[in-house]
Amino acid sequence: MRLAIDAMGGDHAPKEIVLGAVKAADTYKDIEILLVGDEAKIRETFTGHDRISILHTDEVILATDEPVRAVRRKKNASMVLAARQVSEGAADACISAGNTGALMASGLFVVGRIDGIDRPALAPTLPTIGGEGFLLLDVGANVDAKPEHLFQYALMGSVYSNKVRGIANPRVGLLNIGTEEKKGNDLTKEAFTLLKESNLNFVGNVEARDLLNGVADVVVTDGFTGNMVLKTVEGTAMSVFKMLKGALTSSLKSKLAAAVLKPDLKVLKNQMDYSEYGGAALFGLKAPVIKAHGSSNAQALFSAIRQTREMVANDVTGLIKQSAERAKLADKES
Amino acid sequence: MRLAIDAMGGDHAPKEIVLGAVKAADTYKDIEILLVGDEAKIRETFTGHDRISILHTDEVILATDEPVRAVRRKKNASMVLAARQVSEGAADACISAGNTGALMASGLFVVGRIDGIDRPALAPTLPTIGGEGFLLLDVGANVDAKPEHLFQYALMGSVYSNKVRGIANPRVGLLNIGTEEKKGNDLTKEAFTLLKESNLNFVGNVEARDLLNGVADVVVTDGFTGNMVLKTVEGTAMSVFKMLKGALTSSLKSKLAAAVLKPDLKVLKNQMDYSEYGGAALFGLKAPVIKAHGSSNAQALFSAIRQTREMVANDVTGLIKQSAERAKLADKES
Repeated sequence: MRLAIDAMGGDHAPKEIVLGAVKAADTYKDIEILLVGDEAKIRETFTGHDRISILHTDEVILATDEPVRAVRRKKNASMVLAARQVSEGAADACISAGNTGALMASGLFVVGRIDGIDRPALAPTLPTIGGEGFLLLDVGANVDAKPEHLFQYALMGSVYSNKVRGIANPRVGLLNIGTEEKKGNDLTKEAFTLLKESNLNFVGNVEARDLLNGVADVVVTDGFTGNMVLKTVEGTAMSVFKMLKGALTSSLKSKLAAAVLKPDLKVLKNQMDYSEYGGAALFGLKAPVIKAHGSSNAQALFSAIRQTREMVANDVTGLIKQSAERAKLADKES
Repeated sequence: MRLAIDAMGGDHAPKEIVLGAVKAADTYKDIEILLVGDEAKIRETFTGHDRISILHTDEVILATDEPVRAVRRKKNASMVLAARQVSEGAADACISAGNTGALMASGLFVVGRIDGIDRPALAPTLPTIGGEGFLLLDVGANVDAKPEHLFQYALMGSVYSNKVRGIANPRVGLLNIGTEEKKGNDLTKEAFTLLKESNLNFVGNVEARDLLNGVADVVVTDGFTGNMVLKTVEGTAMSVFKMLKGALTSSLKSKLAAAVLKPDLKVLKNQMDYSEYGGAALFGLKAPVIKAHGSSNAQALFSAIRQTREMVANDVTGLIKQSAERAKLADKES
């Protein structure tokens, strides 16, 4: 399979992107990689690989660019060009650690939506205490959502969790302000009914407080709420670590004890680092489009490539399409 | 002033409630406390105080009761009776650590809403890294909200932060998925305009990721999102501490080092413990109604009483009413 990678996206591009790509090509003999970006800059790190080629372009979308406008105007930006490789059949999937909004726009305008899915959804895997992680979607591909969109998110998340994460019968939870059936706003109440009547493994409403305990494998919510929850998890974990650092350096005695604990604390920090689970997948498009974290190092990019490879190999896109068609059919018959 | 306290609400009632009340009465000579609940059970802890009296009732609202129904049916429940002391003029404010939904219903049906405020809002103070804390509202008094409700939340939060938290010109932030003006859903876009045109100290959109860094003193959002953010902060902090505990007891060496750090870690945990900031105030009612955390110990209840006393002494309710009237007037003139 062929994967197109935006070599210029993210805080540590192109160096860490190139290193991650080389590691992945060394590890997986069935992939070919197309690095899209500034050839001279890429070659500062890249010394050649028989299954990695370069597609040169000068143009880049910046983190500060207004997403939709940037994608429309910078037609040869590395990210847009990577997406175009997919729509033109030259690649099976694409990956970028760049501007999230621009990647969503590239996915929607360049790669295109699957029939039967109304809205794409952005789906990162978040950490849990037990280490198994859970898929949260949507975290901001759309700011509003209708009940049927949440149902489609559940469907796409279930296919992905089954095929890529190897979960036999993924538990789907609906993020809500309480666990009781009648709780929530109009959106969650209607979505509850849709999910309950579906053949998904719906475990009911789940509360934000319990997410990191692993109450469900797939948690669906509207993009506004999902974005809030994602950023609150990040912000709170970061804040606690910052306070922890302050506490552990408050005196010489603390510093000495902290030095002993350093390896344990490192493990803990890695547990909360969700780049280990790969990037955030953009579901509902005609091919896998993966958003790697902006601060991706080579290891994070490697994880994103591994994840993308699984999505392509297991035809997650095709299965989502089939599931969406079956759901539409069932809806018409009822 | 007279404060009515539901002696039967919360996980450690009535013992810790009584102890907190006695401590507060000893500390503040200007308050009289009415403990509402089962006299025999209260007297197991309470040995008498010249400014604390008991109003006996057998009935109690349970944590598992359906809120609105419970308030309507259990007219003599300790919580409802405490609220009634306020509406009948026998108390200036009331406090409960019991069922949150039932306290909101008691506030709305028994104490009643201020003219000019369409919806009451539940407003806890959350921790920040710097220790100053910030007020988040609404966290679930209402599941949906209109732009003008968010404006009213901002207004109420500003009065409270100024009068009770002593912040000269409280910075008001609008919780949103990005900091740029045009970001968000219809609700936040319209609320942005209302807040920008107001005479509040509006600092623009704030992201969930930055909340604990203290980006604003008052953060407004709809009750569904606020509830999610509140519970995500709680859940994430709890999860990180749980993982930390696991890491610090993973080996004998770790355990020894952790023992040295115990006091530092205790300080850290207290920093994240927002019951230190008092309870969650229910704004927009004719008198202060305060929700103390369900797991309140005597110290947390004492903090809630201190906070309630400040609200009464500074006439927060009266000032909210005046602000709401001024805002209505300005609205009509424009």
